[in-house]
Amino acid sequence: MTQIKKLVLDVLKPHQPNALEFATALADLGDGLAINVAVEEVDEKTESIIVLIEGENIDYDLIAERIKELGASVHSIDEVEVVGAKNKMGE
Amino acid sequence: MTQIKKLVLDVLKPHQPNALEFATALADLGDGLAINVAVEEVDEKTESIIVLIEGENIDYDLIAERIKELGASVHSIDEVEVVGAKNKMGE
Amino acid sequence: MTQIKKLVLDVLKPHQPNALEFATALADLGDGLAINVAVEEVDEKTESIIVLIEGENIDYDLIAERIKELGASVHSIDEVEVVGAKNKMGE
Amino acid sequence: MTQIKKLVLDVLKPHQPNALEFATALADLGDGLAINVAVEEVDEKTESIIVLIEGENIDYDLIAERIKELGASVHSIDEVEVVGAKNKMGE
Amino acid sequence: MTQIKKLVLDVLKPHQPNALEFATALADLGDGLAINVAVEEVDEKTESIIVLIEGENIDYDLIAERIKELGASVHSIDEVEVVGAKNKMGE
Amino acid sequence: MTQIKKLVLDVLKPHQPNALEFATALADLGDGLAINVAVEEVDEKTESIIVLIEGENIDYDLIAERIKELGASVHSIDEVEVVGAKNKMGE
Amino acid sequence: MTQIKKLVLDVLKPHQPNALEFATALADLGDGLAINVAVEEVDEKTESIIVLIEGENIDYDLIAERIKELGASVHSIDEVEVVGAKNKMGE
Repeated sequence: MTQIKKLVLDVLKPHQPNALEFATALADLGDGLAINVAVEEVDEKTESIIVLIEGENIDYDLIAERIKELGASVHSIDEVEVVGAKNKMGE
Repeated sequence: MTQIKKLVLDVLKPHQPNALEFATALADLGDGLAINVAVEEVDEKTESIIVLIEGENIDYDLIAERIKELGASVHSIDEVEVVGAKNKMGE
Repeated sequence: MTQIKKLVLDVLKPHQPNALEFATALADLGDGLAINVAVEEVDEKTESIIVLIEGENIDYDLIAERIKELGASVHSIDEVEVVGAKNKMGE
Repeated sequence: MTQIKKLVLDVLKPHQPNALEFATALADLGDGLAINVAVEEVDEKTESIIVLIEGENIDYDLIAERIKELGASVHSIDEVEVVGAKNKMGE
Repeated sequence: MTQIKKLVLDVLKPHQPNALEFATALADLGDGLAINVAVEEVDEKTESIIVLIEGENIDYDLIAERIKELGASVHSIDEVEVVGAKNKMGE
Repeated sequence: MTQIKKLVLDVLKPHQPNALEFATALADLGDGLAINVAVEEVDEKTESIIVLIEGENIDYDLIAERIKELGASVHSIDEVEVVGAKNKMGE
Repeated sequence: MTQIKKLVLDVLKPHQPNALEFATALADLGDGLAINVAVEEVDEKTESIIVLIEGENIDYDLIAERIKELGASVHSIDEVEVVGAKNKMGE
């Protein structure tokens, strides 16, 4: 068993929802999930954002699905931090 | 339920109210709200400021409305930090 | 009610009073007020200084008045930090 | 007896598994093992990643074997931290 | 009442006394006064030094007088930190 | 009596043993000795590594001897930290 | 009474004694004296080193004498930190 503690995603999104609504929609997925969205580049119809997600045990599939629902796409996973859980229960 | 902990806004404002009055008007919106205004560029009639807002549970709509009342406009949301509240009560 | 915690002022002043006398005159305005004056540029008759003021509850009007009495002028407010007071008493 | 506390590996890997799956597969090897994968460069068929591994007593052979199973190869060991164990038991 | 906590002076001095003797002569002026002298530029007959003075309540007149006795001159006051004393006794 | 607390060595070594084996061989020399090896440059037959050694009381002769046994050579001692032992016993 | 807490010396020394032997010879002069020697530049017959000395009450004359005995010379005193002793006993 492993736990994802940190994810840095390079995401391309339309102008709407804005960065705040985008971050809120992700934070809404889990208790104590901390989302930081920094806008990197703004183009005519889209903007590139860096999404930093920190949490005790991040569910990436849930995150990815929500990003898709928001009309955005994960351009790349720039950084991840994964920890082997202390109570390893079989594999 | 989510809480906005941090907002970085790129704002265009007229020279009046000045940065101090501007920050004070925002800080006045909530208990323990910390507002940092840094003047980035001064033009003939306007100035670009970076507004950093930190708080336990920032009400963005209230912030945005006050900024508008001050004759200024949010040029972009540069960074946001949103946290999924611990006691998640339905969605 | 709000409290000013930090002010960064870009000030133009004559050579006299010098930076030390200038800072002392400001610090004299309030208990526990911390004043840092850094000389940025020295011209023939004037010098540009950056004045950093930190305190629990800075009275800007008093500061501005004293700066004027010292023959100097606030060129710009570069940064401010204002906090919404915990015990908010009506508005 | 010595213990490996930190390893920084420069690894070349195919696009699949992605950085998250890659880090997870490594973290799965040991309790409390912290894996950070940063994507450095993306080419047509491969990507260069920097893998930072931290743990109390890292088993490099296990790590190397798993990396190979994932279709990737260790391009170089960029940094290592090894500590002489306190209870030295013969040599 | 105010207290000077920090002074940064740009000083021009002859080669003798050297930086160590210079700093010692200043430190000798008060209990717990911390003096840091960094040599910035060495010319044929003089050297430019940056003198950082930290203390609870620095007496600038005493400092200035001693610098003069050492054959040196304060070229400029680069930074000062002054604090309004807690027990303000009349003005 | 003095104690060596830190050594930074610029070392030229063959590709084998690799950085990990090299660091392990040094860490094996003493209890609680922390070895950090960073690969700086890789040439056809050799590589330049920076070896940072930290410990309570490093035995340099032992270190130097082991480095030699590993087929490597100390190109230069880049930094050392030595402390005069508290209980100075004659000289 | 004053105490020297820190000295940064720019020293020119022959290749022998090496940086480690040099630092050890200085550290040997006092209890708890911490010596850091960083090699800056290596020439054919000499090398420039920066010697950082930290201690509670550094005896500069002793240091200078030992440096001379080691065949080296203090090129310049780059930084000093001197503190006015708490119990000032006459002057």
